[in-house]
Amino acid sequence: MGRIYNFGAGPSMLPLPVLEQAQAELVDYRGCGMSVMEISHRSAIFEEINNAAQADIKQLLGLDDNWSVMFMGGGGTLQFAMIPMNFLTPGKVGAYADTGNFAHKAMGEAAKVGEVAVAYSSRSTNYDRVPSPENLRMPHQAAYLYICSNNTVYGTEYHEYPDMGHIPLIADFSSDFLSRPVPMDKFSLVYGGAQKNIGPAGVTVVIAKKNFVRGRDENLPLMLNYETFMNHNSTYNTPPVFGVYIVGLVAKWLLAQGGLEAMEIRNRRKIQKVYDVIDAYPDFYAGRAQKDSRSLMNATFNLPTTDLENRFIEEASQVGMVGLKGHRVAGGIRASLYNAMPEEGAECLAAFMEDFYKRNR
Amino acid sequence: MGRIYNFGAGPSMLPLPVLEQAQAELVDYRGCGMSVMEISHRSAIFEEINNAAQADIKQLLGLDDNWSVMFMGGGGTLQFAMIPMNFLTPGKVGAYADTGNFAHKAMGEAAKVGEVAVAYSSRSTNYDRVPSPENLRMPHQAAYLYICSNNTVYGTEYHEYPDMGHIPLIADFSSDFLSRPVPMDKFSLVYGGAQKNIGPAGVTVVIAKKNFVRGRDENLPLMLNYETFMNHNSTYNTPPVFGVYIVGLVAKWLLAQGGLEAMEIRNRRKIQKVYDVIDAYPDFYAGRAQKDSRSLMNATFNLPTTDLENRFIEEASQVGMVGLKGHRVAGGIRASLYNAMPEEGAECLAAFMEDFYKRNR
Repeated sequence: MGRIYNFGAGPSMLPLPVLEQAQAELVDYRGCGMSVMEISHRSAIFEEINNAAQADIKQLLGLDDNWSVMFMGGGGTLQFAMIPMNFLTPGKVGAYADTGNFAHKAMGEAAKVGEVAVAYSSRSTNYDRVPSPENLRMPHQAAYLYICSNNTVYGTEYHEYPDMGHIPLIADFSSDFLSRPVPMDKFSLVYGGAQKNIGPAGVTVVIAKKNFVRGRDENLPLMLNYETFMNHNSTYNTPPVFGVYIVGLVAKWLLAQGGLEAMEIRNRRKIQKVYDVIDAYPDFYAGRAQKDSRSLMNATFNLPTTDLENRFIEEASQVGMVGLKGHRVAGGIRASLYNAMPEEGAECLAAFMEDFYKRNR
Repeated sequence: MGRIYNFGAGPSMLPLPVLEQAQAELVDYRGCGMSVMEISHRSAIFEEINNAAQADIKQLLGLDDNWSVMFMGGGGTLQFAMIPMNFLTPGKVGAYADTGNFAHKAMGEAAKVGEVAVAYSSRSTNYDRVPSPENLRMPHQAAYLYICSNNTVYGTEYHEYPDMGHIPLIADFSSDFLSRPVPMDKFSLVYGGAQKNIGPAGVTVVIAKKNFVRGRDENLPLMLNYETFMNHNSTYNTPPVFGVYIVGLVAKWLLAQGGLEAMEIRNRRKIQKVYDVIDAYPDFYAGRAQKDSRSLMNATFNLPTTDLENRFIEEASQVGMVGLKGHRVAGGIRASLYNAMPEEGAECLAAFMEDFYKRNR
């Protein structure tokens, strides 16, 4: 079968040139006589891969040496626990903007560690929006504000990030990581599971201000303390070597595309094609997200009936477009157009939606 | 460069047929139009990969449905913390056999969680041996006994595992995982980082009796509770998909080699070639491990001077043998001959040792 368009929410598409390069050097990495999967994490070869990946991510985000880029395992769900374990100190309150499934889970994990407060919630409107800065209600003694930048399940994304002053801002960027420029100076720590926008499942990228990470509770388990990763260049123990290598290839690909400004322009053009069809036929394609909260990555919508939704998914798969089924907690249709989705994929989906509407209106 | 012999302690060699298959299907997995790195962890394709890997590991170890095979991230060091978090209940004592660097670290992590006791230690003899069952001194109210089956750094390995009766036996098998048959009925939980014997770095295989894992503290973070992995077939969140795929290929390769009985015969034949040279020239090659504790995987020895050791490592690398430098806490030479090291590699090393001795005695 030819290459298909995978609109899945993650794991999801990787750039074809990255896959082809990984394939070419899989058995013998650049003439070293070993696969990347076989090299020591303490070898000069991996040190170069690791450092280059970090440097390229820093370049993409415009970060200086006050920031640390770390590679971990365990996915976003482990971050849900690590964040309060590291930063929700006694007497303080973890503030959460409850904007979707994963923000809610993050808050639940923090509640196992300490006190939490809801700084904002769109749960009652089925998570159809994210807050603008003035809608946040911060508790006294906030340890941090935690937000989920892009809510994959509901297709919403922050269009403006709050200025929190002295309160650390922490964000889950799993589903919009490196998809557009980010005002990183507003944040203290951000993270993303790699498997949506930047690599394979099994590596989580954490980016933090060094000053913020330093001086944590020494009684924390080693692998649950960010400082262990920062102080040992993510090689205190064996990191996910192959995953870091792929992340590095994707970062180089992003730089070659023109960086995050160029990616934002392309990503807007891609998803706008889908939103245009939704907006042209609002009685048939019911967008789930409020327009001013719409995601650049995931377009979510419902058709008039579940039966039509199932046919939509089935017929799309027959023409080489998969992964369009909505998350099980939300239903409907979800089209994820991450960095690696080609423009032709977006055009193909928009044309299919147009055609499907005409045949089924 | 041709394929080299990597004697590194991990990450280390993978079977060439596994690498070649992974390369062939890297861009398009078996005609599905996607890379394994791109498929959803909820897809039928991954479900098959995941279930087959588990089934093949169970077949290799002779396990029935009372056992659960789980795939996690975070490496062995995260297991050091998860084990006491799950099983070191208040009022109980975690017993540790301190037989090396990693067993010692595991005990240190447990001491952050609860009370620990040293059931055995070979620290004073530079970790040159492991206990025979009668040398273990168990504390009252033991929650479990924790052992490290193979001590990579020092080249020692249990030749007999204790029968603990009603006390759960937990073991780190990171460096001898699936290298020989194991009397699994003696154990309650075993684990191994994949990157030595069974796959790439970034996936940890945990095998546990279901009854042992059930009913843990509900206040544990989700990703630090074994039950989350057991109850969700390791897909509560996105697992390291590509790593699990490679583990599955290696498990199939092990079955095709004749299973663990055949691997043990081959592994003994391989490392015996190295031990034979050590035993022939004991004044030149000083084996670090007591003979009755010698490892099937890692042979460790010293040469008369550090200068000779450095020349040994340098000259070996010139003829295509790398990774022979001992761990930084132990120094000397360490040759790791895991499952994927070909017999020719062992012969090549033994011949080199013979020659190096004759040139430098």
